[in-house]
Amino acid sequence: MLPGSSIGQRLVLTSFGESHGRAIGAVLDGCPAGLEIDEKDIQKMLDQRKPGQSLITTQRKEKDQVEIISGVFRGYTTGAPITMVIWNSDQKSKDYENLKTLLRPGHSDYPAMIKYNHFNDYRGGGRFSGRLTATHVMGGAIARKLLKITLGIETNSYTSQIGKINIERRFNETMIESIYKNEVRCPEEKTAKKMRDSILDARKKGDSLGGIIESITTNVPEGLGEPIFNSLESDLSRAMFSIPSVKGVEFGSGFEGSKMYGSENNDLYMIKKGKIMTKTNNSGGILGGISNGMPITMRVAFKPASSISQKQETVDIKTKKSAILQVKGRHDPCVVPRAPPVVDSLVSLTLVDHALMSGIIKPVL
Amino acid sequence: MLPGSSIGQRLVLTSFGESHGRAIGAVLDGCPAGLEIDEKDIQKMLDQRKPGQSLITTQRKEKDQVEIISGVFRGYTTGAPITMVIWNSDQKSKDYENLKTLLRPGHSDYPAMIKYNHFNDYRGGGRFSGRLTATHVMGGAIARKLLKITLGIETNSYTSQIGKINIERRFNETMIESIYKNEVRCPEEKTAKKMRDSILDARKKGDSLGGIIESITTNVPEGLGEPIFNSLESDLSRAMFSIPSVKGVEFGSGFEGSKMYGSENNDLYMIKKGKIMTKTNNSGGILGGISNGMPITMRVAFKPASSISQKQETVDIKTKKSAILQVKGRHDPCVVPRAPPVVDSLVSLTLVDHALMSGIIKPVL
Amino acid sequence: MLPGSSIGQRLVLTSFGESHGRAIGAVLDGCPAGLEIDEKDIQKMLDQRKPGQSLITTQRKEKDQVEIISGVFRGYTTGAPITMVIWNSDQKSKDYENLKTLLRPGHSDYPAMIKYNHFNDYRGGGRFSGRLTATHVMGGAIARKLLKITLGIETNSYTSQIGKINIERRFNETMIESIYKNEVRCPEEKTAKKMRDSILDARKKGDSLGGIIESITTNVPEGLGEPIFNSLESDLSRAMFSIPSVKGVEFGSGFEGSKMYGSENNDLYMIKKGKIMTKTNNSGGILGGISNGMPITMRVAFKPASSISQKQETVDIKTKKSAILQVKGRHDPCVVPRAPPVVDSLVSLTLVDHALMSGIIKPVL
Amino acid sequence: MLPGSSIGQRLVLTSFGESHGRAIGAVLDGCPAGLEIDEKDIQKMLDQRKPGQSLITTQRKEKDQVEIISGVFRGYTTGAPITMVIWNSDQKSKDYENLKTLLRPGHSDYPAMIKYNHFNDYRGGGRFSGRLTATHVMGGAIARKLLKITLGIETNSYTSQIGKINIERRFNETMIESIYKNEVRCPEEKTAKKMRDSILDARKKGDSLGGIIESITTNVPEGLGEPIFNSLESDLSRAMFSIPSVKGVEFGSGFEGSKMYGSENNDLYMIKKGKIMTKTNNSGGILGGISNGMPITMRVAFKPASSISQKQETVDIKTKKSAILQVKGRHDPCVVPRAPPVVDSLVSLTLVDHALMSGIIKPVL
Repeated sequence: MLPGSSIGQRLVLTSFGESHGRAIGAVLDGCPAGLEIDEKDIQKMLDQRKPGQSLITTQRKEKDQVEIISGVFRGYTTGAPITMVIWNSDQKSKDYENLKTLLRPGHSDYPAMIKYNHFNDYRGGGRFSGRLTATHVMGGAIARKLLKITLGIETNSYTSQIGKINIERRFNETMIESIYKNEVRCPEEKTAKKMRDSILDARKKGDSLGGIIESITTNVPEGLGEPIFNSLESDLSRAMFSIPSVKGVEFGSGFEGSKMYGSENNDLYMIKKGKIMTKTNNSGGILGGISNGMPITMRVAFKPASSISQKQETVDIKTKKSAILQVKGRHDPCVVPRAPPVVDSLVSLTLVDHALMSGIIKPVL
Repeated sequence: MLPGSSIGQRLVLTSFGESHGRAIGAVLDGCPAGLEIDEKDIQKMLDQRKPGQSLITTQRKEKDQVEIISGVFRGYTTGAPITMVIWNSDQKSKDYENLKTLLRPGHSDYPAMIKYNHFNDYRGGGRFSGRLTATHVMGGAIARKLLKITLGIETNSYTSQIGKINIERRFNETMIESIYKNEVRCPEEKTAKKMRDSILDARKKGDSLGGIIESITTNVPEGLGEPIFNSLESDLSRAMFSIPSVKGVEFGSGFEGSKMYGSENNDLYMIKKGKIMTKTNNSGGILGGISNGMPITMRVAFKPASSISQKQETVDIKTKKSAILQVKGRHDPCVVPRAPPVVDSLVSLTLVDHALMSGIIKPVL
Repeated sequence: MLPGSSIGQRLVLTSFGESHGRAIGAVLDGCPAGLEIDEKDIQKMLDQRKPGQSLITTQRKEKDQVEIISGVFRGYTTGAPITMVIWNSDQKSKDYENLKTLLRPGHSDYPAMIKYNHFNDYRGGGRFSGRLTATHVMGGAIARKLLKITLGIETNSYTSQIGKINIERRFNETMIESIYKNEVRCPEEKTAKKMRDSILDARKKGDSLGGIIESITTNVPEGLGEPIFNSLESDLSRAMFSIPSVKGVEFGSGFEGSKMYGSENNDLYMIKKGKIMTKTNNSGGILGGISNGMPITMRVAFKPASSISQKQETVDIKTKKSAILQVKGRHDPCVVPRAPPVVDSLVSLTLVDHALMSGIIKPVL
Repeated sequence: MLPGSSIGQRLVLTSFGESHGRAIGAVLDGCPAGLEIDEKDIQKMLDQRKPGQSLITTQRKEKDQVEIISGVFRGYTTGAPITMVIWNSDQKSKDYENLKTLLRPGHSDYPAMIKYNHFNDYRGGGRFSGRLTATHVMGGAIARKLLKITLGIETNSYTSQIGKINIERRFNETMIESIYKNEVRCPEEKTAKKMRDSILDARKKGDSLGGIIESITTNVPEGLGEPIFNSLESDLSRAMFSIPSVKGVEFGSGFEGSKMYGSENNDLYMIKKGKIMTKTNNSGGILGGISNGMPITMRVAFKPASSISQKQETVDIKTKKSAILQVKGRHDPCVVPRAPPVVDSLVSLTLVDHALMSGIIKPVL
């Protein structure tokens, strides 16, 4: 849905605000009436995304305190749009003043300047800041609760790669409870430690790291997805690429599966406890764009954060001459550990949207 | 846009038809008035996708002859919806009769049956058949011509991987003219030969192979893309995942980039012939969801075709018992070589959509 | 939904074709799977709209024979888009040749020429011809059947005014069976006769007449409508104004109600057979944009047809000089008698759309 | 666009909030970057709509002070969504407590209760309150300014009928400057006085009155409107019916025109100062759903306000028994005088939407 600030067809999230403006917020329209909701439900997921929690994230302190200002009455959703706001506080806009002319490599600065003819709010990345993913979480926390209550669907994601360090096992439901035991959000304690060290090392060098988030969603009923163009993969990938720094998305065996034979990659059907299931899950729970009842598994690749404190060659857009840039300010050496609640949110929003279309979730609970 | 058969906001493609029904077709609404268009323009791209052209594709012979039945008057588009139809001919629906109850591993059969409560047209895959990608090409051929004429944008894609065999070089504009010199659509002649052999080998074994298509689009102006949720990556990936068998999409350095340091992955700015450019193109031409003027590079992973003639364990949905399935019919041992015009089409449709939104292409030429 | 050829959110009708092109047709996407449908169901309503049936309509003979070319399998809808086509036959495009430069008063000629920079297909009105309302009926016939089968909703409309001749009674369910007993579609036999005479009189004078269609829909459940901007009135009026010649729409007491006191216009609640109802129905069955269980009543004003054979002053767009125009060709002296199936169709499409949103009709029957 | 709280395709207004909740507000997405905007621009139109200004409106005092919280930077729009909020203050929710079970005739109470299963916020009408039209004005004020600056389009509307008292002249540009000279917003001073007296009389009787707003928009370029389903009339009427109490909309000669002959109603073309114009304007500036360069004229019928202080028969929804209701609280005896800025706002939003689609207004000024 255009012109860009909204996602969803039946459950529509509209994101607003800028990193260093007065506020960021979200309007969630189409949420079924009758869902018990409290600011705490949302705050919990926002806190998981919040910066300043450890050495591996940016040192900006943002309270990120959410307020619900419409759509909830006597503790329940009313069917009207739910508006949520976080007032901005800890901005240091001066840090960005010199960026007005020096293009930051890897950032949206240059195309945004051209697109909006310099009218865009560039402070702190403005509309392009990772901070805006908090607005996804506002709506996503509600969607995630709704999925759990109505259909028992559980969406979880975790860090599976930081730089060149990889998790050892893949998609596994037992991992879920260990995700938030460490600051890297990696369910393998030993791997998490290595990841943490590599992030601190990058930080020391004034550099940054990327990584991969894996997402697993269980108890998904068969039949979600609207082929051809609103396949579940189409809508999930669209949602994922709205997260800054995401450059790749794959489902099930994904890119690895493209190297396999059909006889290896096909998931054979079997009967288990009277239910039709597949022996493997190379499809990632989606066939023909429709959920097949197996867990939905997705991997999301994040590039290393583009804000680094090392000196970089660049261009001054005013003088159109070469220049050297050294980005100041407090940045995340690696955004991946803060991404799991964002991925969970967008998966949840997408699944509720499809559940409403399929009539599996009703407009009034 | 719901309910699933349409893509685009300003240029909307609606796909209709089934593999073994009377026809497949497309309605393209929002195409600017005044574009000179002929059935030949469309037929040329359809022919590149057509099966039965060599040993490495299915032996079905389909003429795939397109007819324009509305929206073009005196050789020019009128601004009204353009409707295009291909009448089906060479279907052998009997081959599919036993599939009514035996679930084909890796196919949409099972979730589609559940979703549509057995009302779906299962013949030849029905609505889920790769054959439907011809409807994407109908609209895409028009969009591609429009991009070239109005903005000089060139979209091309080629096979870069079949099974475990990889192309040696990456995204390179000079490759483009060699793409259609062989049946594999791989611009490296030597690699193409190996790919061909591996497909024939898989075919002999009753097996199938997947692979990767790389897409490169040049002369893209800065500023296309509508953040946050209609970023160029969001809309391109959504389009790609509408192609059957696609399980992964990445832009620029993609998954590989997630292993790099920021200092390695950032594309440094420079001035070249008075124009701002980047030294590398790890961003794939998109920053903050907006085109930055560099070529848009994308890689699309296809799983191996799920229809194989080897025996496979499965379940009979009627008896809910285990069964052995042997798929008959004429199938592609590898669909990847037929995919480049489909990828080009969807890239073109997406870019025209965004060019209309940005006001760079006008509703009347 | 843009760019103009589609209506609906969950049930989407896309109209294509031109009056004198190869065909006109419609794609209906989002129709629930499992509805028994036959070309005869559609043909019956098309025949009610067909020209050449009597002296009061145009003498063009068009068979208007519909063909379903996708989306129906073994007699039932599949959940895939339903495509329907009528091939054009009895066009006499020469009649329109002199219209290329002389603007027809009251017609879309002038704004269409400007909008599409002369690329539009002007033959027979092209895309603006009343003939295109047959595409609304194609989809509407399916929607109307669906409403009746699933919810028992009955939509009917009739001619209540032709020129200055008015029906005596207003909205009344007992009238319904008399609608198609005469060629004017007015359920009062005596009034119908007067209307017929006045149309024949206008015809003789080379003039035309307008009129009013009244629509009544019964058995509507409470709760349809999505305030604020997709109120039932918003969506119904939007649909009505897509019919050429419609210049006014009102619900319930409408314009007349604007002259009343609140104490007169308010519909008082009462209990009847255990059900909450209102004593009067000045609201036309819609309060706050939502259906309240009473019959939905709507009046739709049609201007007199703009094509008349009298001489008219106009301008030659080429020479930009005054000119005298005499329109040839076979035209309806009054389009109103052909409009009831069109109004019924658009009401039905709109109500199915809302019933799907509200979860009252399921995506699979 | 669903699910109901948004209007527009390219310029999208999302309305949020409830009458007695914490706030009401709007997000305007798609507004071109580079428009100089100040809270005062918006406040001015809000003040024209504000209650408590005279004896003929409700005595509630609401400051209706708007705050812009996103999308404007250094005094100019940025291309990002513009969020505006009014914090609620003067609510007396107790007045509504007894309304929880007694259905108010003519109100949305009953269908809203059914639709949302009693979860809706009923205080002060909640989401259905006329107060929500302030959110239309927030976005509309920006759109109106944009139209004037970029295209010179002027939108104005005035009260043409209150109860049975009618204005003497019709659509006339010279009236415009007199609209806000009296509290009734009727440009004829003498008629305004009569209207005022009749409102005060209704008020004394505990009754209410309806009326008609006429809207005239000048300097509209030819070519706005996207037939078939996004005709200018379709989109304008859809917008009008989102205003509470609106029950009828007509363009140009409207219902009156349905009684005329074609030879009377057709607007003859002429050349005036080298420009093609029509001698009369029975089309209301729209032909074939497209603007023809003449002023757009529209009439909007408002029913009398349903809240009256007279005793009314009704039903208690809890006991399902008959009851007598006497509505307390401070209500408008006639909402029509407060409606002109709302109508102007919705016309402006619709025209900007279409101007963006047509490429006449660019996404960056």
